[in-house]
Amino acid sequence: MDEVKVIEIKKSVFAANDQDADALRKELKNKGVYLLNLMSSPGSGKTTTLIRTINLLKDRLRVAVMEADIDSDVDARRIQAATGIPSIQLHTGGMCHLDAEMTRQGLDNLPLEDFDLVVLENVGNLVCPAEFDTGAVRNAMILSVPEGDDKPLKYPLMFSVCNVVVVNKTDVMPYFDFDLDRCREHVRMRNPRARVIPICAKTGEGVDAFADWLLEEVKTWKQH
Amino acid sequence: MDEVKVIEIKKSVFAANDQDADALRKELKNKGVYLLNLMSSPGSGKTTTLIRTINLLKDRLRVAVMEADIDSDVDARRIQAATGIPSIQLHTGGMCHLDAEMTRQGLDNLPLEDFDLVVLENVGNLVCPAEFDTGAVRNAMILSVPEGDDKPLKYPLMFSVCNVVVVNKTDVMPYFDFDLDRCREHVRMRNPRARVIPICAKTGEGVDAFADWLLEEVKTWKQH
Repeated sequence: MDEVKVIEIKKSVFAANDQDADALRKELKNKGVYLLNLMSSPGSGKTTTLIRTINLLKDRLRVAVMEADIDSDVDARRIQAATGIPSIQLHTGGMCHLDAEMTRQGLDNLPLEDFDLVVLENVGNLVCPAEFDTGAVRNAMILSVPEGDDKPLKYPLMFSVCNVVVVNKTDVMPYFDFDLDRCREHVRMRNPRARVIPICAKTGEGVDAFADWLLEEVKTWKQH
Repeated sequence: MDEVKVIEIKKSVFAANDQDADALRKELKNKGVYLLNLMSSPGSGKTTTLIRTINLLKDRLRVAVMEADIDSDVDARRIQAATGIPSIQLHTGGMCHLDAEMTRQGLDNLPLEDFDLVVLENVGNLVCPAEFDTGAVRNAMILSVPEGDDKPLKYPLMFSVCNVVVVNKTDVMPYFDFDLDRCREHVRMRNPRARVIPICAKTGEGVDAFADWLLEEVKTWKQH
């Protein structure tokens, strides 16, 4: 597989993360780059979903990916091999989340003027990443069917901060006690405005709806 | 469902967690109580596994459960209803892990002399809980098949600190790209001495092996 750039992320020294995140968002706006923060549990299918989504978007948008991981670089290599787009790996050194300064350390390694959309694949964790604004324009998360439709009840903050909840692995719905309507209802309790998009990243089913949402988002954001 | 005790856990003020954890372990030893710290991702089936395991053990050991959760008390109620054993809920108030002092706050709410085994169901998270010694005698974790057999590569610390890796949801193995031998190999890379126990908590298959391990552990520990 292709070599990918691996960046060792250092712990942030900024206490005022919210201000720092706002500043980063402004900088990205000036450069015309849309940053999406993608979160989920371990093993929910973030990387497979991203590969499918990017392959639908890459002829219409210039996309790059930053993969945050504790210490492997498997995901960045996988994405680069499967999509051909630039992908860099951020090593968080055991840290459980990314904040705005850590995100900036990653972005500093990309020629931002060359991209419309940068996707940050956050650390697999439903708790800590939700607490830190990364400077992204929007937050999205993936909830996979085997995790259960009760997760919005148990991880309230994560579902509150996300604009989109992608429900992945719909192909195995018959084997799990997962009800899509109940899931929508639980998401609505945490965040009435969040969109729920069911997909199967393995077969590609439904991924176009997520890609369309993202395309529309980037276009709108670049115009205003 | 039965009412369960809900404890709001406060942030620990002790910086020296390792010493505090050792002190707690000693106190528990003096009281003849074995504490198991059970960790996993969200949705791996911790609660269902616990119910099955406790139902196999409760005639031979006096068991209690402490359920850590960010803010719901669904799991403690479920365990109490399904097993009849005392179960208390620890609210971590958004915190992503438990340390020894937080664990102690929970234990203070149980009449410890009445129990041989207390199981702490930690927050659903493969990152942060691995970093904090809770004072437990042993750490166990559940990895569910849909999460993938590569998780030991991505969450190295979690697999290094666990004495047992329970592989749950083996019934859906045909629908996922999960290889048990590859999983064992990945676990071995992180922790050559960890036991891997495949189970299906839904049907109960294999749970006896985990219960037997735990029974033996508690007996040995109480004798020495």
